[in-house]
Amino acid sequence: MDELSLIQKLCALLPTSTDTIVGPGDDCAVLDLQLADRWILFKTDAIVEGTHFTPATPAEKIGRKAIARCLSDIAAMAGEPKHALITLGLPAGFDPERIHDIYRGAAEIASAHKITIVGGETTTNPLLLLSVAMIGTVAKDRCILRAGSKLGDAIFVTGELGGSIHGKHLDFTPRLKEATWLAGHFLPHAMIDLSDGLASDLRHLVEASGCGAELLTTAIPISAAAKTNPPSSAQPKTALMAALTDGEDYELLFTIASRDAVPLLDAWKNQFPETKLTCIGKTVETPGITLRDHKGIRPLTAHGYIHFK
Amino acid sequence: MDELSLIQKLCALLPTSTDTIVGPGDDCAVLDLQLADRWILFKTDAIVEGTHFTPATPAEKIGRKAIARCLSDIAAMAGEPKHALITLGLPAGFDPERIHDIYRGAAEIASAHKITIVGGETTTNPLLLLSVAMIGTVAKDRCILRAGSKLGDAIFVTGELGGSIHGKHLDFTPRLKEATWLAGHFLPHAMIDLSDGLASDLRHLVEASGCGAELLTTAIPISAAAKTNPPSSAQPKTALMAALTDGEDYELLFTIASRDAVPLLDAWKNQFPETKLTCIGKTVETPGITLRDHKGIRPLTAHGYIHFK
Repeated sequence: MDELSLIQKLCALLPTSTDTIVGPGDDCAVLDLQLADRWILFKTDAIVEGTHFTPATPAEKIGRKAIARCLSDIAAMAGEPKHALITLGLPAGFDPERIHDIYRGAAEIASAHKITIVGGETTTNPLLLLSVAMIGTVAKDRCILRAGSKLGDAIFVTGELGGSIHGKHLDFTPRLKEATWLAGHFLPHAMIDLSDGLASDLRHLVEASGCGAELLTTAIPISAAAKTNPPSSAQPKTALMAALTDGEDYELLFTIASRDAVPLLDAWKNQFPETKLTCIGKTVETPGITLRDHKGIRPLTAHGYIHFK
Repeated sequence: MDELSLIQKLCALLPTSTDTIVGPGDDCAVLDLQLADRWILFKTDAIVEGTHFTPATPAEKIGRKAIARCLSDIAAMAGEPKHALITLGLPAGFDPERIHDIYRGAAEIASAHKITIVGGETTTNPLLLLSVAMIGTVAKDRCILRAGSKLGDAIFVTGELGGSIHGKHLDFTPRLKEATWLAGHFLPHAMIDLSDGLASDLRHLVEASGCGAELLTTAIPISAAAKTNPPSSAQPKTALMAALTDGEDYELLFTIASRDAVPLLDAWKNQFPETKLTCIGKTVETPGITLRDHKGIRPLTAHGYIHFK
């Protein structure tokens, strides 16, 4: 059993409460705290030096990323972010100037999205660590979960995938306005933000929805950055493999009724002319994910696809 | 400038919002999310191996402590805890059995206080780290802040202080029911939970309230554990000094109008016969804290008092 499954199993042992609409296992927890027509979204996420950034990463980009990752999870539920708390783990003797710059980066993206940072704490830790907790709200009739895809849905993804490590992972703009617009106009059946990579995150979505997915290989939007392997990479990836598995894309992945696919693409072009939206496949009955191209159909695992011999 | 001041200064740079009732600097943030007659309380807190527990600490006590610390902060606002999220920082190769036991400890205290753990995430970290985020609610007319003490208030503390490292820091019961009862019957003017030690936390309270405090040395309730120095202590403390500065007491410190002091003590004895409540002094105009005993009055700093020659 992996750690996540273990934790979800343990959380399931807890007494349930009628005010928990969605517990562990979605982008955010969804809570009913007796607001008139909205639910509360609740999310926490941590980034650590060496895993999510390096000692060379500019401090304000670190603060920005910590907040932006939670914003992307709020976007995945079509929610509106409201308030954040930051817990900083600091090595002994950490430079106060660098803390200032971390907070400046966090403050800038918070301001841009009209959220407030309502507290902060520090503790000692061998590596720089930022743990962000965020509260948002979402209209009860527009909250979109990972579960909910119907058979034959069209699968869409925003932006372009892969190669995030070349810069996007520090500079991405959480897709909040796109998600809110989508929920208001086309109400996707299911949605998730891409943090682990399309191959993993689509699996989370279809597993939660009790279906499978068939992707059209040539349709997958591959970023220019995905075509460059990072200098440190031991095993070079193809650009397609990078788009499927690199992770940290922070794009929206969602499914809608297939009859809405063309109207959505038309409306999107007017609404967000600078952001790509691509239909990459459809949901199917058979669990799991397959890739279809001119050579046939092959299974896609979380770690990528099996090469044709 | 220390780190906390820096962070508070930076948070103050953020755009304020009308729905932030209390931002950084109190036990919890207080938010107005349009619930009928209640505010939302929002808190995050992290514990790290080597600082808040050791590799020898039983895993379930670690999970318990992480949740209990946040519960104590909710208690300090006279709030009702509702939901928690846990982010786990795990060293590579961490024993899944130990994660199980950490969660079991967290689950047990969560159940005891009727809160739900609505999600969990893991990240890698050189040392075991638990970051807990918690949401609660509080009646708008019963929310008690650190600010609010009036001149001549009686200062009270629950329980006994000092020596928490001998066991209490892993086993304490957050004073939630006591705080709710207090707010309902005597409405303290200001309240804080004791995490850094009486000398530090009383300073936070009087500074927020714009006054000072005079403590009666002989009144301070010293725990039996405070009389034993930990085996590792290089500089033995007196029991009084331990009670003033050890920290991690997780008791309530609050002030009420002096005319309410005796009625409170009477009512408390009936309500909580097993929990000590002690009047330890009064608020005064002069900023800072002084200790009064038969030898006279001396100043109390965050690190303790100055010995009489």
